[in-house]
Amino acid sequence: MQEEPVDRAATLAEIAQEAGVSAPTVSKVLNGRADVAPATRERVEDLLHRYGYRRRRGNRQTSPLLELVFHELESAWAVEVIRGVENAVRDEGLSIVLSESAERHGPGQSWVDGVLARRPTGVVLVLSDLDRSLREQLARRDIPFVVLDPAGDPGQEVPAVGTTNWDGGLAATRHLLDLGHRRIGLLGGPARMMCSRARADGYRAALDMAGIPYDPRLVREGDFHHESGRLLGLELLRLPERPTAVFAGNDLQALGLYEAARELGLRIPEDLSVVGFDDLPLARWVGPPLTTVRQPLTEMAETATRLVIDLARGVRPGTLRVDLATSLVVRSSTAAPRAQPAA
Amino acid sequence: MQEEPVDRAATLAEIAQEAGVSAPTVSKVLNGRADVAPATRERVEDLLHRYGYRRRRGNRQTSPLLELVFHELESAWAVEVIRGVENAVRDEGLSIVLSESAERHGPGQSWVDGVLARRPTGVVLVLSDLDRSLREQLARRDIPFVVLDPAGDPGQEVPAVGTTNWDGGLAATRHLLDLGHRRIGLLGGPARMMCSRARADGYRAALDMAGIPYDPRLVREGDFHHESGRLLGLELLRLPERPTAVFAGNDLQALGLYEAARELGLRIPEDLSVVGFDDLPLARWVGPPLTTVRQPLTEMAETATRLVIDLARGVRPGTLRVDLATSLVVRSSTAAPRAQPAA
Repeated sequence: MQEEPVDRAATLAEIAQEAGVSAPTVSKVLNGRADVAPATRERVEDLLHRYGYRRRRGNRQTSPLLELVFHELESAWAVEVIRGVENAVRDEGLSIVLSESAERHGPGQSWVDGVLARRPTGVVLVLSDLDRSLREQLARRDIPFVVLDPAGDPGQEVPAVGTTNWDGGLAATRHLLDLGHRRIGLLGGPARMMCSRARADGYRAALDMAGIPYDPRLVREGDFHHESGRLLGLELLRLPERPTAVFAGNDLQALGLYEAARELGLRIPEDLSVVGFDDLPLARWVGPPLTTVRQPLTEMAETATRLVIDLARGVRPGTLRVDLATSLVVRSSTAAPRAQPAA
Repeated sequence: MQEEPVDRAATLAEIAQEAGVSAPTVSKVLNGRADVAPATRERVEDLLHRYGYRRRRGNRQTSPLLELVFHELESAWAVEVIRGVENAVRDEGLSIVLSESAERHGPGQSWVDGVLARRPTGVVLVLSDLDRSLREQLARRDIPFVVLDPAGDPGQEVPAVGTTNWDGGLAATRHLLDLGHRRIGLLGGPARMMCSRARADGYRAALDMAGIPYDPRLVREGDFHHESGRLLGLELLRLPERPTAVFAGNDLQALGLYEAARELGLRIPEDLSVVGFDDLPLARWVGPPLTTVRQPLTEMAETATRLVIDLARGVRPGTLRVDLATSLVVRSSTAAPRAQPAA
């Protein structure tokens, strides 16, 4: 994938001459100093790369920093992820640099310029896509990265840690079927995100295997936030034939559904069973405690961080894609439907 | 406060000789490189300081990094704080370095060594105490710091951003008194933390002004976590004469109290009124939505970050201690006590 380095050593002075800059500027780029213009840095980095300066791992000039990038920090599960990264970096003597790429779905050029200046050991991207050009810039500088729970399809060559979303959707829906529910709604996450799609497909597969036809009237697409859970929950619960149970795309949407049920005077689980996804700490604390699919966020973040540290050391893992298992946690928000559910 | 620098310029070579190291080593220290032994760095830094090298602000060699240190990342409010810091650094082109000082109540020497090597623009400490020696090391290197919501008494000379905890405790308790409650419990936070003490004193002052004697049997000291809310909540609710209302030290303890009430078959607010403190997002999502004292965590974190950036620029604010106002948010967990509360 990488262009072959020219097979001879060049001095800093030669590289400086070819780049049209001073030798101290080349030295600054080598030392990862911030006070170099991005275009200059890129030109010098390219020459350093061509002349094989930065080829030997271990000799590479890196900072003891691990970059952690969130698409958005609003989400309640950010802390679970940060804790996992913190667990993994603690013994390695690395510190976490945290950033947010809120505006778009992935971080942009100004973020990459900052990373190149900082020369971190590696990058963990949470639910963020790096476009191809940015990805290549990191690769050219030997900065490894791993995507945690990818929102899009990162491709086979991108190291990624996820969870078994499809199995989780299947387990959640089967649990409701086993309790006797037949009219089961889905309050899913955004369809553009792979994790939402996989959960929805698991839901569909469970219905299918139970011989229950998929009914699009019982399905809504939310945005993983509390408010969409409430609004779309109200839609589902106001249907002439409302569902007796709903699989929510995540815990926050499940809590929005709780609120919708309260507004309509429906009791959980007597009038409505609810299953979430994530198992955030708050799932245990709400009333009634939420039955949910546990996604091991902290362990996933630890795994992603260890993977990126391995890659930084030149250790090539057997597989670049790891999915950790989900598990169903049954609490008090699910029960058998009443004999004659209200229409 | 600072030792006067010697009034003449010294060359790097002279400093190197005096420190017993090579000139490139002095240069590394000046450039904030990581590959210098802490003891050597300290010796060189001291000499640089004596010879006035690092006196001119603006010329100081700093990284565009803002250090954010949590005592512990478990707490659900960490995200609110991180968002505030992120808001404040975004336009400044700074990145956040996140660390946790979980073991002790404040970060130790190895953390300071890392900070000195990174040479950040400034440090925001969340609920962490820096001991005197560490504080002096930061001051000697001109690295400004601000304490957010100090757990101990940071002293007049320490820049700090807090909230009006006493006023919040007063407002919470007055709200319960206004509803007609007379047997009001306190499920407070750790007494060693200033914020807990101030909230408890506000509770006491409100009772006092209403002519109700302070009853230590109705008071418990928790640790700000859900589980202590549940366990101490069970103690309070099992008293022969149980309180008809409880002011919980924070939202998580309030939710623990919710669970204790559920276990004992007590309804909120019919049988028990509950007031929290913090106004985390989840306070809106629980059932019933929690009446709580809003602490503007995101704004506090923004203020602390802006203060530290000002200090880094040599701007001396009029006051080093800022408290942002709390406000009572009334939701559905509080109501008048029943005419004849169960004994």
